[in-house]
Amino acid sequence: MKEIGIGLLGFGTVGAGVVEALRKNGDLLAARTGVRLVLRKIADLDLDRDRGVALDRSLLTTDAISVIDDPAIQIVVELIGGTKIARTFITRALEHGKPVVTANKALLAECGAEIFRLAAKHGTAVGFEASVAGAIPIIKALREGLVGNRIARVYGILNGTCNYILTRMEREGDTFDHALKEAQAHGYAESDPTLDVDGWDTAHKAVVLASLAHGFPVDMAAVYVEGIRTLAKVDIDYARVLGYRVKLLGVVKAEPDGIDVRVHPTLIPANHMLSSVNGVFNAVMVDGDIAGQTVYFGRGAGRLPTASAVVSDLADLAVTMAAGAPFPPTLPHDLPGRCLNIGDISSRYYLRISLLDKPGVMGVLTTVLGNHGISIASVVQKETHAGRNVPVIIVTHRAREADMNVALAEIDARPFVGAKTIRLRIEDLDGQI
Amino acid sequence: MKEIGIGLLGFGTVGAGVVEALRKNGDLLAARTGVRLVLRKIADLDLDRDRGVALDRSLLTTDAISVIDDPAIQIVVELIGGTKIARTFITRALEHGKPVVTANKALLAECGAEIFRLAAKHGTAVGFEASVAGAIPIIKALREGLVGNRIARVYGILNGTCNYILTRMEREGDTFDHALKEAQAHGYAESDPTLDVDGWDTAHKAVVLASLAHGFPVDMAAVYVEGIRTLAKVDIDYARVLGYRVKLLGVVKAEPDGIDVRVHPTLIPANHMLSSVNGVFNAVMVDGDIAGQTVYFGRGAGRLPTASAVVSDLADLAVTMAAGAPFPPTLPHDLPGRCLNIGDISSRYYLRISLLDKPGVMGVLTTVLGNHGISIASVVQKETHAGRNVPVIIVTHRAREADMNVALAEIDARPFVGAKTIRLRIEDLDGQI
Repeated sequence: MKEIGIGLLGFGTVGAGVVEALRKNGDLLAARTGVRLVLRKIADLDLDRDRGVALDRSLLTTDAISVIDDPAIQIVVELIGGTKIARTFITRALEHGKPVVTANKALLAECGAEIFRLAAKHGTAVGFEASVAGAIPIIKALREGLVGNRIARVYGILNGTCNYILTRMEREGDTFDHALKEAQAHGYAESDPTLDVDGWDTAHKAVVLASLAHGFPVDMAAVYVEGIRTLAKVDIDYARVLGYRVKLLGVVKAEPDGIDVRVHPTLIPANHMLSSVNGVFNAVMVDGDIAGQTVYFGRGAGRLPTASAVVSDLADLAVTMAAGAPFPPTLPHDLPGRCLNIGDISSRYYLRISLLDKPGVMGVLTTVLGNHGISIASVVQKETHAGRNVPVIIVTHRAREADMNVALAEIDARPFVGAKTIRLRIEDLDGQI
Repeated sequence: MKEIGIGLLGFGTVGAGVVEALRKNGDLLAARTGVRLVLRKIADLDLDRDRGVALDRSLLTTDAISVIDDPAIQIVVELIGGTKIARTFITRALEHGKPVVTANKALLAECGAEIFRLAAKHGTAVGFEASVAGAIPIIKALREGLVGNRIARVYGILNGTCNYILTRMEREGDTFDHALKEAQAHGYAESDPTLDVDGWDTAHKAVVLASLAHGFPVDMAAVYVEGIRTLAKVDIDYARVLGYRVKLLGVVKAEPDGIDVRVHPTLIPANHMLSSVNGVFNAVMVDGDIAGQTVYFGRGAGRLPTASAVVSDLADLAVTMAAGAPFPPTLPHDLPGRCLNIGDISSRYYLRISLLDKPGVMGVLTTVLGNHGISIASVVQKETHAGRNVPVIIVTHRAREADMNVALAEIDARPFVGAKTIRLRIEDLDGQI
């Protein structure tokens, strides 16, 4: 049986998972694919920490370059993360014509176009199934399973930390701060949670999915990103009353004038399948013009789930290499396309306006919104106390974001508005699902 | 750009969907894959019926053999269905070394091993994404996305007709007969619904998934099949009270002594994602030892959703052919494996016993079950009327099916049991999901 030599860069959580997966199921994998994956070298700066996997220590080295350059290593797996040294290593491997498998969404979001171009130039490939949604084979689904579809919409719950926090806020009534502490205590959040809770990790993944779905390199700078740090429990509760759940969504929508890519807490219908995705799980809904809506669900992170995705990429690459075949094109990065500016998107909105209750103020609100072409779908106002601030919840019909920005600026400048209006976006995800 | 010639056998609903999908997204597909799929011939006995797709009529022929033999046709798509003529055509194409794409689960379930062997012998391949779960790329997920996993369990809602009927019975309170009539009125069920409602279609698909997951040809004869025709609304209602929903599941479980493959109405926890799959939709849960649980959801049938799967197979095959590469092995059909007999499986059970209420009879029931190693997890008994039959619902702990059969025979022979006991199986699908 043919053997393909694997070199691993980064022996952290996922790296150890890959070692364990290959040890556990290497024989089965060989029987299934007809190729044997042989782990030949592992590079990491820390050679001493116990990763909980049985390992021949002679595989370990601190010298990543020697792994990349080793002629016995035919595929390089980059699990270091970050956008600096990982980029150098990936570039070097691709320049050697060696395919790379990576879980590095930050790097792909920031310079994926360059990396894919380099791979194409050197007749090699980049596998990145592990970069989005862990164990869920969403890259393969988009790239191959739905290859015959024009992708109208992708909605992803792509960050387990945020989904865990939102689930706690909804179910346990936690504040954001308390839910974050719980997430940290359970190992679901980093001590510096910025990348997760401020939406950047979700944005990186949304960019990878958007680029894949639409075939042009989506620029991170074009993506509107809003995290969950300032989300108030009260808005989750009001959303529930209105028949919605609040999820941090990566949104990728094809609109007539461009692709709408954004990340923000989003009200979605409580009876939609995505609303039942709780805790650290991830899910992605893809709406294709031929397939209709399909949903993919599973563990979005963790040692073994992410390793499952890495091994899938390794198997694909190894089968191609063992056959002496050229790699299929990684991404068609030359399709025409552009991203919409957040101001040019349209959405339905949830507004929580802090209103000093006086006769006629609702009429003023309606007029201001109407002046900007925004019509109201429903209003919720709890019992009022004359002369005190009361929250008024307004759900709007579809409106342009730029118009909403102007309307909210006007509203918030009124003397009868007691605090900055809270604005959340609604996605109706129409269809049965 | 390289072109690959496609010949279509069978111009029915899905065939017309494939024509429409290629017409609509052929350019996009070519941009994505670097290969152009060219539909060269369509064979059908009926050349006159309007399929609602624009078509050059010179593509049409009644002579399927001429399509298969045409040197300009490099991939044959079989969408005729059935196990007779379709088998002849597929065999002929494979003997020519031409890869085949098929949606024919009945044929694959009955003689898949022979077909895959023939493909391997002639160095060609069979694509069968469309054979299970329509638009959902579940074959690709199992075969490639989860290739590094030992598959512990697969649970599939694989028949939209049955799921529609069960959804109506649960939501609208329909009887089976009425729900079936509704399904027929909406075009979701055939006038002869046997293949669907008696579980055979689900069984065919379960066999395809089981063979794929475990790498040996699962024999249809080894699969226990029970449909939904005799399912009573009252059991759906009791299940609901107990926190379950009833779904017709294809079950594939790896047990220590073999693979447990069966199809029957199944109680699953109401809070599991599969319970929220309603109407004609399909979903598959796969539990892999590396990935954990992943769930795949979408439209399981219909013109375009099934076409999406066919086009995905076409694209994979075309990319390989255009590269002049050998096809990856379709299935490793030589892994060791055997199926369990239904008597040797173990399950938790829901029993509805029609009991003539007399003092002490519950004690007798408990004793009979206990004598066969079956212990009771919970009992529901509504207000009783002395001397009349009352339903007693018993939920058991895990027990062996053969033991349950003997126990039920004993119970049903007792004079205080007024009707044949209803027995349904429970799957707890443990995990958060």
